[in-house]
Amino acid sequence: MSEKNPRTIAEHLLLRLQEHGVHHVFGVPGDYVLRFYQLLSESPLTHIGTTREDTAAFAADGYARSQGMGAIAVTYGVGALSVVNAIAGANAESSPVVVISGAPGVAEQQTDPLIHHRFGPFTFQREIFQRITCATAVLDDPLTACREIDRTLEAARFHSRPVYIELPRDRVDTEGLPVPYEESLDPSSDSAALAEAVAETLAHLQQAQQPVIIAGVEAHRRGLQDALAELVLRAQVPVAATLTGKSVVGERHPAYLGIYEGAMGPEATRRYVESADMLLMLGVTLNDVDTGIYTAKLDPNCVIRASQNEVIIRHHRFAQVTLADFVRELATVTPQAQRAWPDVGTGMNAPGFPEQGRPLRIGRLIGHLNQSMPSDATLVSDTGDCLFAAIELRVHDRTEFLASAFYTTMGFAVPAALGAKIARPERRPVVLVGDGAFQMTGTELATSARLGLNTIVIVFNNAGYSTERYILDGPFNDIGEWRFERFGELCPNVEGFVVHTEEEFEKAWQSALQNQGFPTLINAHLPPDDPSPAMRRLTAHIKERIS
Amino acid sequence: MSEKNPRTIAEHLLLRLQEHGVHHVFGVPGDYVLRFYQLLSESPLTHIGTTREDTAAFAADGYARSQGMGAIAVTYGVGALSVVNAIAGANAESSPVVVISGAPGVAEQQTDPLIHHRFGPFTFQREIFQRITCATAVLDDPLTACREIDRTLEAARFHSRPVYIELPRDRVDTEGLPVPYEESLDPSSDSAALAEAVAETLAHLQQAQQPVIIAGVEAHRRGLQDALAELVLRAQVPVAATLTGKSVVGERHPAYLGIYEGAMGPEATRRYVESADMLLMLGVTLNDVDTGIYTAKLDPNCVIRASQNEVIIRHHRFAQVTLADFVRELATVTPQAQRAWPDVGTGMNAPGFPEQGRPLRIGRLIGHLNQSMPSDATLVSDTGDCLFAAIELRVHDRTEFLASAFYTTMGFAVPAALGAKIARPERRPVVLVGDGAFQMTGTELATSARLGLNTIVIVFNNAGYSTERYILDGPFNDIGEWRFERFGELCPNVEGFVVHTEEEFEKAWQSALQNQGFPTLINAHLPPDDPSPAMRRLTAHIKERIS
Repeated sequence: MSEKNPRTIAEHLLLRLQEHGVHHVFGVPGDYVLRFYQLLSESPLTHIGTTREDTAAFAADGYARSQGMGAIAVTYGVGALSVVNAIAGANAESSPVVVISGAPGVAEQQTDPLIHHRFGPFTFQREIFQRITCATAVLDDPLTACREIDRTLEAARFHSRPVYIELPRDRVDTEGLPVPYEESLDPSSDSAALAEAVAETLAHLQQAQQPVIIAGVEAHRRGLQDALAELVLRAQVPVAATLTGKSVVGERHPAYLGIYEGAMGPEATRRYVESADMLLMLGVTLNDVDTGIYTAKLDPNCVIRASQNEVIIRHHRFAQVTLADFVRELATVTPQAQRAWPDVGTGMNAPGFPEQGRPLRIGRLIGHLNQSMPSDATLVSDTGDCLFAAIELRVHDRTEFLASAFYTTMGFAVPAALGAKIARPERRPVVLVGDGAFQMTGTELATSARLGLNTIVIVFNNAGYSTERYILDGPFNDIGEWRFERFGELCPNVEGFVVHTEEEFEKAWQSALQNQGFPTLINAHLPPDDPSPAMRRLTAHIKERIS
Repeated sequence: MSEKNPRTIAEHLLLRLQEHGVHHVFGVPGDYVLRFYQLLSESPLTHIGTTREDTAAFAADGYARSQGMGAIAVTYGVGALSVVNAIAGANAESSPVVVISGAPGVAEQQTDPLIHHRFGPFTFQREIFQRITCATAVLDDPLTACREIDRTLEAARFHSRPVYIELPRDRVDTEGLPVPYEESLDPSSDSAALAEAVAETLAHLQQAQQPVIIAGVEAHRRGLQDALAELVLRAQVPVAATLTGKSVVGERHPAYLGIYEGAMGPEATRRYVESADMLLMLGVTLNDVDTGIYTAKLDPNCVIRASQNEVIIRHHRFAQVTLADFVRELATVTPQAQRAWPDVGTGMNAPGFPEQGRPLRIGRLIGHLNQSMPSDATLVSDTGDCLFAAIELRVHDRTEFLASAFYTTMGFAVPAALGAKIARPERRPVVLVGDGAFQMTGTELATSARLGLNTIVIVFNNAGYSTERYILDGPFNDIGEWRFERFGELCPNVEGFVVHTEEEFEKAWQSALQNQGFPTLINAHLPPDDPSPAMRRLTAHIKERIS
């Protein structure tokens, strides 16, 4: 889109979205946003219609994680309020999704009428989104509208979190004033503090016998994957990832230790990390999931921790040193070391899979997937035991694992896979999802079918909410029977399989890998009492805490 | 449940819910609410597990409209934030749904930890619900918890709107202090003002040549159906309903004029109402839907309007006269009149339906349904053309029409029908739903199938968002192909039909009426360019307003 000047508020928004790398907008149309949809459909951007609004938001989240920024367009009230959970999730998970909500016109609002989709004062919708985004704007004033668009999108980029833009329908075609927006949010490091922190870190590194890097979600969201890989190779220091930071480093490299998650993560990884004499924690958030419900045992005397705008070495703190500057500087000045990579194995496997007549069990299923995951796979996991299963799966490339790993909302994976596939068509989403989560948003697979995408969905079907079963069981954890494999009956172009044994799974899996023009769904029946090893460890701990 | 004393906070909540007529709680369990679920499952109340949280809220809304109050129980963050749209809808539509959200424990919250499902400060969830409910409580203090429960439930009853109750998981089993709660919200009328308003109304009534009553949603929610019927029969004044108040009076009685909705409603009704020389508007909300986008033409010199706490006669106002007292007093003191009921017809019909080989069209489908709707039907309409179609359908009894008629959220009907059926098992929900709305929440039909409910779902399938097509069309209004009739393939015990002609529809409809032990789904294909008469009128007006 050319830098047309003057331009309307909607034109400015569409232009800036593209400049931020947004080329697709997800959503469901509605009357307060229809004119914007019309302009969208005439623009270089592509609208991806979804079955619901919340799945549009999950899709935009998956798109944002793969592409840098995502966007949805929804109508007022009924549309916007349907995405509150998904956007709160993007906020908790640091994913920059732009919510564009249509609204009654400024002129309409002035008489305070009882118009449809209204649920309270017209200010309430923005006030709700102020609690789940990092910036909000209502484009009611043509004088400031363009600058407000620039400000919110810049906030989304910098904070890597969602923003909310409300566009009254009588302002869509109003001419705006695109003044250059020059405010930068990027903090700069104090160069002396940076130099000192880096020097001290290098000195520790030189002394360390068993240094380890733990990479977290912030390194992911700040786009530090290259610098991190460079640092790992120069310093020859092995690297673990947190669950929320999973796939920030390529997981098939010998430098990779696996997921560190306290007592919840793989045992070999835990042992190696907790016996380290130097821990370089880069962009790690200390939440309950990443610390294995606070079971992580890391000696503070060995820890150097860098986060968004500070570096803490043991018990002293360098303010005004950014994570990005610190990692990049370290990657540049660290001398090339010569160390051997430790041997902590390459994760689970399943020797002899498929064994004739052997019923499918979660442990060997994960092991087999770990061995046979295609190199172009983007692994997308929903919340539940499949998320704990995914801990053990090594993805080939960086940034190829998507999950709501901290916020842990169910129903994320199928729509997020849609967004990821649209952002990076050369990759193939492999979705792991429980039966409880699939019944929440699984119908969004219809959109992948309509667009002819080669997504593979594996439903871990154990007839209920299995994570909860291990905390506190009751009939409320059971769900009804679904023959998910027949999804293609309702929605053309989905191939379905139901499997109970290793052989049946393998046949379905091989067929899925061959399918290139449409989705495959494998309804994998597992016993209700067959938790993954990680879930056994996790739920035992949660149980302790709530009992 | 006995009046056990002392009792725990959860026991008090479960007890009070029953006293308010709540015997079923809808929802999806999650770890912050699991212990409450366990107590719920051990109590006289029944948990109805749904496929998602938002559908639980729609079901509780349908239950509340049929039973007086409804309830859901959900987990913190991911659960509660998923119901924001449905609860905003219940708020806009005056339906008393109690939202019970689990939460991290008070002790857990004190250290401000990053625990899963967290999306911001722990106060934010309540702050969001403050904007979509009439009362909220956080049960963190054992001293006030019982009184807070009493206060919020009383607010739900009185305002007939949703409330939010947050139960930290370490307070579930804490002993509470059940002090008697004696504050009454019910306003009392000024008896002199009431007498004067009633006398003046009667005087006008005696003079009037063509008086008409218009009954609205508030009369519904205040439980004034009996008093209203009494008034109609004593005064012999014919009665129209607004769309949001539809079915406040039995629609098969000769006194019934149909839906008055300005230029949008049936023409015969509009003509009769607008030529009245006295209009008694009882509990009518003047929103855009009920006034046909403000096309209603009612002479203020003829209007007497009673709402929650005032009566306005022509240009003067009686404060402190409640709607309930006004209607009940009028019903008591109005002398028995002798007037003939006007003849405005009995709504649409479809002579000769089914005609051999005749393709199904919306007009004759509505006419046929109007003639053949079973007398035990509760009509539940989703948003879209089916809602406008429902204007023309006369239900047999009172309070047998449910829709999101003002808030107009899509996806309401299938789950609301579940709630209505559970509240009143002797009645049979007949759901009208568009294909766009069905793809949002239609999978909730699985719960009706699991419970063996005889719900009938008619999908008005015109391959897209047809209401929007008539406002502003574009490819964004199209949706993918669904063979909804095969729903039973995925989910056992749903009988499906696909119909294109009148004969096919009739065969499916008769079969559905015979089914008593499971749901029936009729996928009724209609041409995309076949709007209902009401939709033609409505969209023409909306179009004028946004162009």
